[in-house]
Amino acid sequence: MRFGTLYGIGVGPGDPELLTLKAVRILQQVPVVFVPVTRPGAESLAARIAGPHLPATVEVAPLVFAMRAEGAVMADRWEQNAATVGARLALGQDAAFLTEGDPSLYSTFQHVAGCLRRQHPEADIQVIPGVSSIQAVAAAAGVALADADERLALLPATYEDKALTSAFRDFDTVVLLKVAGALERVLDRLDALGLTANARCVVRCGQPGERVIADVNTLRGAKLDYFSTMIVRTKP
Amino acid sequence: MRFGTLYGIGVGPGDPELLTLKAVRILQQVPVVFVPVTRPGAESLAARIAGPHLPATVEVAPLVFAMRAEGAVMADRWEQNAATVGARLALGQDAAFLTEGDPSLYSTFQHVAGCLRRQHPEADIQVIPGVSSIQAVAAAAGVALADADERLALLPATYEDKALTSAFRDFDTVVLLKVAGALERVLDRLDALGLTANARCVVRCGQPGERVIADVNTLRGAKLDYFSTMIVRTKP
Repeated sequence: MRFGTLYGIGVGPGDPELLTLKAVRILQQVPVVFVPVTRPGAESLAARIAGPHLPATVEVAPLVFAMRAEGAVMADRWEQNAATVGARLALGQDAAFLTEGDPSLYSTFQHVAGCLRRQHPEADIQVIPGVSSIQAVAAAAGVALADADERLALLPATYEDKALTSAFRDFDTVVLLKVAGALERVLDRLDALGLTANARCVVRCGQPGERVIADVNTLRGAKLDYFSTMIVRTKP
Repeated sequence: MRFGTLYGIGVGPGDPELLTLKAVRILQQVPVVFVPVTRPGAESLAARIAGPHLPATVEVAPLVFAMRAEGAVMADRWEQNAATVGARLALGQDAAFLTEGDPSLYSTFQHVAGCLRRQHPEADIQVIPGVSSIQAVAAAAGVALADADERLALLPATYEDKALTSAFRDFDTVVLLKVAGALERVLDRLDALGLTANARCVVRCGQPGERVIADVNTLRGAKLDYFSTMIVRTKP
């Protein structure tokens, strides 16, 4: 029997109108759509974004990923979830796996695809790229990520002072993802380098409550939303 | 009279199905679509990509950008083209400006928008993000750009050995845009750092003749297409 195709679909940063035509077409053709959730019963943000484009007849199957689990537990989950997906493909069914933003950027899809390739080398896996949250952040902030011969660095989650300093020195644009956890340290570094005025922070981009902060020093002492991204242009 | 809105629209990397629903909707609403061309009479790649979604009645207006012009000539072109766009907006018409990939990444749109803001501070300028060629390259190569706490660097066009070496040392993934001009130097650096097996090259991504080169050493001595991108994963 023909083995099904798995489509890793990027649903974009939040606005259901930012899905691609290709993503919408595939969602209307597959019998089952896998969606990642952080715990049983939790809502999937990717499923919410794609919601308006899911036919009433499609099966939406949650896959539980323990986002903050330890390495071995996490790897085990990836294997299990890949096996669940593989079992459906083995029935000859095509399937979609939804991912917020783009499947190539900070997505669980990569791990499931990797496990699936090992478990079922015959599986056909296709990536349907989507608009990433980083591009939506740049659009919301009205800032270019890069132009001409400019260099762009994406730094996620944690930043040592040394990494920050060399990124601000060597790159024209630095994007700091999930900046909330290191906010004061980042603001100190920007101040020290005279870059505060060149920074923009976008909170909850593409989601309800989105806002752009042009003067990032006003964020000092605030509890910043987890989904906050800072873009720093390092040249005048 | 109401001043029109300018929509900077990313049309994605090449496949007309990778436009977003939002891009398609706006293209069907605006009376005029500006498209960048490199010389009078030249074809616009962005217009070709968006072609299937342009209504027969829409006016497609080419704007000539001298891609390799000197700084002052180039800046003058941006000003002139922004004035052309601004004149239409001043009539109360909305307009679209097409850009390959995403308007925030290596797009002429940023310059036109910058000039337009100075010429007409009242202009409403909206960026409609699109799938960038970098994401399409990653999807084609079956490679993740970044995962979890990984760092990503985009380096365009020219690379000194020092910049290459520090990028390969400090980042988990390095994307080398327009790699053709520096191919031998990049291959030498990859060899010296033991990273050759971790590199993938995608030629003419999303365009006719697209191909993925898994063994980049086979490219030595070849004349590589201008639209070639290399992705290097720097960790085992």
